[in-house]
Amino acid sequence: MKIWDKGFSVNDKIEKFTVGKDRILDGYLAKYDAIASKAQANMLSKVGIISSDDNQKLQTALDEILVQIEAGEFEIDENYEDIHSKIEAELIIKTGDAGKMIHTARSRNDQVLVAIQLFLKEYLSETKSKVLSLIDILVEKAETHQNDLLPGYTHFQAAMPNSFGMWFSAYAENLLSDLYFFDAAFKVADQNPLGSGAGFGTSFGIDRKMTTEELGFSEMAVSSVGAQMLRGKSEKSTAVAISMVSGTLSKLSYDLVMYNSQDMGFVKLPKEMTTGSSIMPHKKNPDVFELTRAHCNRLQGLPNDIILTINNLPSGYHRDFQILKEILFEPMVQFNDILDILIFALPQLEIKSGFMDQEKYDSIYTVENINHLLQTGTSFRDAYKIVGISVDDGTYVPHKEFKTSHLGSIHNLGLEEIREKIKRYKA
Amino acid sequence: MKIWDKGFSVNDKIEKFTVGKDRILDGYLAKYDAIASKAQANMLSKVGIISSDDNQKLQTALDEILVQIEAGEFEIDENYEDIHSKIEAELIIKTGDAGKMIHTARSRNDQVLVAIQLFLKEYLSETKSKVLSLIDILVEKAETHQNDLLPGYTHFQAAMPNSFGMWFSAYAENLLSDLYFFDAAFKVADQNPLGSGAGFGTSFGIDRKMTTEELGFSEMAVSSVGAQMLRGKSEKSTAVAISMVSGTLSKLSYDLVMYNSQDMGFVKLPKEMTTGSSIMPHKKNPDVFELTRAHCNRLQGLPNDIILTINNLPSGYHRDFQILKEILFEPMVQFNDILDILIFALPQLEIKSGFMDQEKYDSIYTVENINHLLQTGTSFRDAYKIVGISVDDGTYVPHKEFKTSHLGSIHNLGLEEIREKIKRYKA
Amino acid sequence: MKIWDKGFSVNDKIEKFTVGKDRILDGYLAKYDAIASKAQANMLSKVGIISSDDNQKLQTALDEILVQIEAGEFEIDENYEDIHSKIEAELIIKTGDAGKMIHTARSRNDQVLVAIQLFLKEYLSETKSKVLSLIDILVEKAETHQNDLLPGYTHFQAAMPNSFGMWFSAYAENLLSDLYFFDAAFKVADQNPLGSGAGFGTSFGIDRKMTTEELGFSEMAVSSVGAQMLRGKSEKSTAVAISMVSGTLSKLSYDLVMYNSQDMGFVKLPKEMTTGSSIMPHKKNPDVFELTRAHCNRLQGLPNDIILTINNLPSGYHRDFQILKEILFEPMVQFNDILDILIFALPQLEIKSGFMDQEKYDSIYTVENINHLLQTGTSFRDAYKIVGISVDDGTYVPHKEFKTSHLGSIHNLGLEEIREKIKRYKA
Amino acid sequence: MKIWDKGFSVNDKIEKFTVGKDRILDGYLAKYDAIASKAQANMLSKVGIISSDDNQKLQTALDEILVQIEAGEFEIDENYEDIHSKIEAELIIKTGDAGKMIHTARSRNDQVLVAIQLFLKEYLSETKSKVLSLIDILVEKAETHQNDLLPGYTHFQAAMPNSFGMWFSAYAENLLSDLYFFDAAFKVADQNPLGSGAGFGTSFGIDRKMTTEELGFSEMAVSSVGAQMLRGKSEKSTAVAISMVSGTLSKLSYDLVMYNSQDMGFVKLPKEMTTGSSIMPHKKNPDVFELTRAHCNRLQGLPNDIILTINNLPSGYHRDFQILKEILFEPMVQFNDILDILIFALPQLEIKSGFMDQEKYDSIYTVENINHLLQTGTSFRDAYKIVGISVDDGTYVPHKEFKTSHLGSIHNLGLEEIREKIKRYKA
Repeated sequence: MKIWDKGFSVNDKIEKFTVGKDRILDGYLAKYDAIASKAQANMLSKVGIISSDDNQKLQTALDEILVQIEAGEFEIDENYEDIHSKIEAELIIKTGDAGKMIHTARSRNDQVLVAIQLFLKEYLSETKSKVLSLIDILVEKAETHQNDLLPGYTHFQAAMPNSFGMWFSAYAENLLSDLYFFDAAFKVADQNPLGSGAGFGTSFGIDRKMTTEELGFSEMAVSSVGAQMLRGKSEKSTAVAISMVSGTLSKLSYDLVMYNSQDMGFVKLPKEMTTGSSIMPHKKNPDVFELTRAHCNRLQGLPNDIILTINNLPSGYHRDFQILKEILFEPMVQFNDILDILIFALPQLEIKSGFMDQEKYDSIYTVENINHLLQTGTSFRDAYKIVGISVDDGTYVPHKEFKTSHLGSIHNLGLEEIREKIKRYKA
Repeated sequence: MKIWDKGFSVNDKIEKFTVGKDRILDGYLAKYDAIASKAQANMLSKVGIISSDDNQKLQTALDEILVQIEAGEFEIDENYEDIHSKIEAELIIKTGDAGKMIHTARSRNDQVLVAIQLFLKEYLSETKSKVLSLIDILVEKAETHQNDLLPGYTHFQAAMPNSFGMWFSAYAENLLSDLYFFDAAFKVADQNPLGSGAGFGTSFGIDRKMTTEELGFSEMAVSSVGAQMLRGKSEKSTAVAISMVSGTLSKLSYDLVMYNSQDMGFVKLPKEMTTGSSIMPHKKNPDVFELTRAHCNRLQGLPNDIILTINNLPSGYHRDFQILKEILFEPMVQFNDILDILIFALPQLEIKSGFMDQEKYDSIYTVENINHLLQTGTSFRDAYKIVGISVDDGTYVPHKEFKTSHLGSIHNLGLEEIREKIKRYKA
Repeated sequence: MKIWDKGFSVNDKIEKFTVGKDRILDGYLAKYDAIASKAQANMLSKVGIISSDDNQKLQTALDEILVQIEAGEFEIDENYEDIHSKIEAELIIKTGDAGKMIHTARSRNDQVLVAIQLFLKEYLSETKSKVLSLIDILVEKAETHQNDLLPGYTHFQAAMPNSFGMWFSAYAENLLSDLYFFDAAFKVADQNPLGSGAGFGTSFGIDRKMTTEELGFSEMAVSSVGAQMLRGKSEKSTAVAISMVSGTLSKLSYDLVMYNSQDMGFVKLPKEMTTGSSIMPHKKNPDVFELTRAHCNRLQGLPNDIILTINNLPSGYHRDFQILKEILFEPMVQFNDILDILIFALPQLEIKSGFMDQEKYDSIYTVENINHLLQTGTSFRDAYKIVGISVDDGTYVPHKEFKTSHLGSIHNLGLEEIREKIKRYKA
Repeated sequence: MKIWDKGFSVNDKIEKFTVGKDRILDGYLAKYDAIASKAQANMLSKVGIISSDDNQKLQTALDEILVQIEAGEFEIDENYEDIHSKIEAELIIKTGDAGKMIHTARSRNDQVLVAIQLFLKEYLSETKSKVLSLIDILVEKAETHQNDLLPGYTHFQAAMPNSFGMWFSAYAENLLSDLYFFDAAFKVADQNPLGSGAGFGTSFGIDRKMTTEELGFSEMAVSSVGAQMLRGKSEKSTAVAISMVSGTLSKLSYDLVMYNSQDMGFVKLPKEMTTGSSIMPHKKNPDVFELTRAHCNRLQGLPNDIILTINNLPSGYHRDFQILKEILFEPMVQFNDILDILIFALPQLEIKSGFMDQEKYDSIYTVENINHLLQTGTSFRDAYKIVGISVDDGTYVPHKEFKTSHLGSIHNLGLEEIREKIKRYKA
């Protein structure tokens, strides 16, 4: 049953093409469509468009549907083009005329959009928790490995002493920065579009404040035109949030892949996390981190994919928005898988030792040599030249003893300050 | 003078290539480098690395430089590769040995980054004000034109009655949503990286809390490694903020370009804002809005340009970051120009009248016809079919009288609620 | 069985993540892996690495596998991580020791890559045929509708008379231009990487010229390092080809969606190709063309998605390349679906009539008015001003009679020349 | 003078915004506008629209202008909005009434487009020569360094022996593959749009075959609508060509940056090509290759920037196309600079020695150990296990003697075959 059935049938070929993957992807929206339908029915009852009896029937039927959905037993068969027509049909079966009233003062446009908003809100909230868990793990690893040094690189060149304490906490802080974009995306999704109809409102005397409150939205998308313009914008915002965290996790993965090489050899991945080569028996390839890197890189392109799809469409609904589900929903799940894998893998990461003594890393102490000279009264520019010459003529002896004191340095990681920062963020 | 001069000269060809556009682009950073240098000197004096006498000289010299910068009289000549070496050289000329001390416990990396952070903060703050001005204009236009109807389109098809009141306020609310990303970008930039050196801290006993406070940062980027990782992330965050607003302004522009066509004819652009054709004397082309659209579309690609440049670089500084200035700074200015042009142009936009009476728009009242039938007791699904048949067989008579009451609809725009929403945002 | 099994088992969670969608996506490569394995076995036999008896067994077994694949009966069960290990295992079951020899002098890297190259070649060749069919349809439609005028738009404004003859043939020629990129992508895929091993060759005395010839490659990817670098480049090249055609088809779709609006009303889509609205019974939405547009827009982002994934990876294989199958293969199929839908839909497109007489289109004849004045001896610049003034003061009378003669104009479409151009291209 | 001046003046603010950077960017088109104007005048004369006397005057004047352009003495002052109006004005000054006739049967649209097509053709042709020079250098370096081994990496792990011979020739072959896209872009640009007017032809009896021939185009863009649709497509095609080569050069640069690190130390950059650090005197940073990498990465985003700008614009000219000059022209020059820098730098690249003897690289010979076992009759799968166990239990002794024979391997680089491939390409 097509909700807009007018008696002539759409060519099969065309229908297959237009329905696309909706039947599968709408699985993500089922729960939220039922929840929003409950709020809609309550509101219709309150303003007198449906009777409280009918509302009671609808509430009961929708609760039954919700139970089925949670149990994974609610399916969209081939007779229905999407989840929304399926639920409506089910309501009619269950409640008769009451079900026929559920679509009053609602259009498919605001119906789909409110479900998407609710879905994105829940996703952003749950995924943010995962990121915060990862942040906690990183701070803990920073503490554990605060005395484990490694060379610090700039321009791919060993430059100065670095520590795994600074390295782990760096990623903790950077992920925290990325979460600002989760919050922004959440605010975009946290606006109620229900009641905006097809984007131009309705002449029914509905009460949008009531559904806003019942559905837990912090704000209403007031203008009906503006509410509909959230379609695309909300999806893009969530994609941006995912993209930002992905950028950081890609870098973390890249570091680990390199640190796992024979040339560096700073970390050891548990055997279970490596894979081999079909011809080289010595290989223990860091596939897990190569794949988190690759997926995170690809996820960084999500906002661009969405922009390409919706850009230069004037205001008002276009069918084009439908394929955003296809672009966004599976990658959203994939992103969660990546977070899960990292939450699982990072605690098991081992740090090797001994590698700092290699002669090739002697030069990373030149800054310490300079600082040592400065304490004897040499000016910075002169000390810089003296040490530079000693490196060039081979007389350089590294000054390996050093002690840092400032916040965020090797011997004063500032983990307390970072924990405070996280706490301030959570507040 | 190259700050890192070691006695051999870099090939001219190479130098030209590596310096690139730095001398021009660094103009944007001059002010912030001077301000951060003042804070650095104050801090070095407080912790006893330089004398308070030397600090006094540096403060005076830097104040003089700031005056020159504000007056547009501070230039980077060919002897210097960037603004940072130029200012340092100037300090040495002005203060002698004191100037030679300014770079103590600082690296070019944290020096550049702190200037970028300060620059982005000020930019984001000023540009956000412009967006808020535009929002105010849109709300005002919504009020002025609350009774001006136009057809509402979905699928590019005239669908239902719409109003310029809903249309203008839609863009106001959507821009407000975009500003959440300005706030996120601001928070990323609002972290002090000064003191992180080349990304691995320093053994000098510097006081990073002091510079954080003096420079007005809300947070410190604690981990030195993490501080340096803000390079690229801060630029990308600002690009994302610009991209989000641009997406909305592109859509607004697209609408206006279409509304200006002979086929629609809903708006009238002042002659001064149109341009002609070299062969068609009747043309009054909406070039201004085509160009705001085009520039905004291109600006939506900024985050992707930055991601392409910095992606898959492991942690630590790479020279690649240098070209982000080239990618970002001019578009930042261009984006401001677009906001200025819209702030200038939108108040002059005139709304035409009379176009709603055309027969081609009769069908936009079908929903009203249905609602009218509903009031007589017909069910929605039945009313839908009745009206559909009348449209198909040519017997349809539009029910043009209608009255909406819900928030965000034609006859109840909810401008007060929108103004409250804006006020809540500003708070 | 993992081809690289060394006795310890990979954690389930990790394995699920690393295998990803390989088992499904490798279905596309099955046929080509079997074909390349046949060539490999023949070559190994010729250079004496395996006996001709063993080769015979392998050829027979691979032919059986090919029959199964063609029949859709060859499946990758959970014991195998990909198609390549599955086929190798099957060979061992079928041929014993001979099967154990098939991987001699071959690595998984060149094995996968040669299958991808063969797959892309066949795809590009078949899909190009579809595009050529579409081009033929467009030229035919141009001929059918050579006398059907419509307004020609610039800046979204009705500008000059246009014809569906010019419009249809425009897209035919533009698609032909896009095919140049299909040819470029084909040439990239048409290089044999087999024998390059893991990217550094092998010390076995293999004969790469023989496999190049047997597999029908025009060129060999000679350098083993270079051969491996085609991984990613070939996929990107195919994505670029798809992207270019998609850009043109998106524009065609956009035109049709607009032409179907009440404001323009130039075309009529068969009822079967439109869908309705859940609340507006008059709507016959052009969903098919909105969806071809949307999918084509999203496909234009494919090259960028690939670049993001593989960029800044140094030479040599990385596991990251594995997810290119996920990025590319399904969209490749989707692109074919779009071509099929357009090949099905475009011939049914009807052109409306009568719309050119509307007063709003009078001004599109101003150029003809000018040209008429030019024939009376007025200079262009003067004629331009005279007509411009008449438009502004309302005295303008359109000069609707005109006759064009040059190639590519309304009355001389040059379809013969276009057909010749297509013929030259095919040659 | 605006070519389309109708007597009212465009607001200054607006004009500044709409003219944008045209006056500077049009410098690139000046030469081609003059050349196309010569062809246009010759054709107008031949078909009798202008007298041969007038044509003679125009040819002389345009030749003078061309001399000025070549000498860099032709400037667009503030009275003109672009190069096209400036040249037309200059012609009127020089030739009086003849100059007023030059724009007959031409629109600004086909005028700009034909200049762009000619410009892109020349650019693509010259730049392709540079890429071919680079290819020659790479083949030569491959020959010089055919005996210089380095570790071959997969998954960032040292895997097997590699050689600089294979490495250099890899990039030569890959660049050759990229040139297929230069050829495709050239073919797109090699179509004459002159005569298509504003995209809908003209009623003047012009001879498009004549201008096609005189301007050296291989094909005519026949349909006037289709010709105009090349605007955007041609620019995008050139951007794609640049993007493809950039992808390869970025990878080459990445390799060199890593090979220059202390951890690898495979290459030595001449001191002149490195830069230092402001605080670490031992640093010799590979800035040149970091910058070629960064710029090449950014250039890979060019097609996406263009797609974002022109996507979802229906057929017909839009002002949006104007900003493609801004997006494309400077990067085109920058790309040439990168090619020049690499042509200058690569021949000076030195290969270090001795690094292969380090114990960390012993394991890259495991494949040779296996092959050695195979020669004693062990099966591949068994040999793989034996060697794997020896690596794990520390008893592994690398089998460093090996000899490859197949084309594209260390001891048989196939440089002759590669040179033949290049020759076939050039033919």
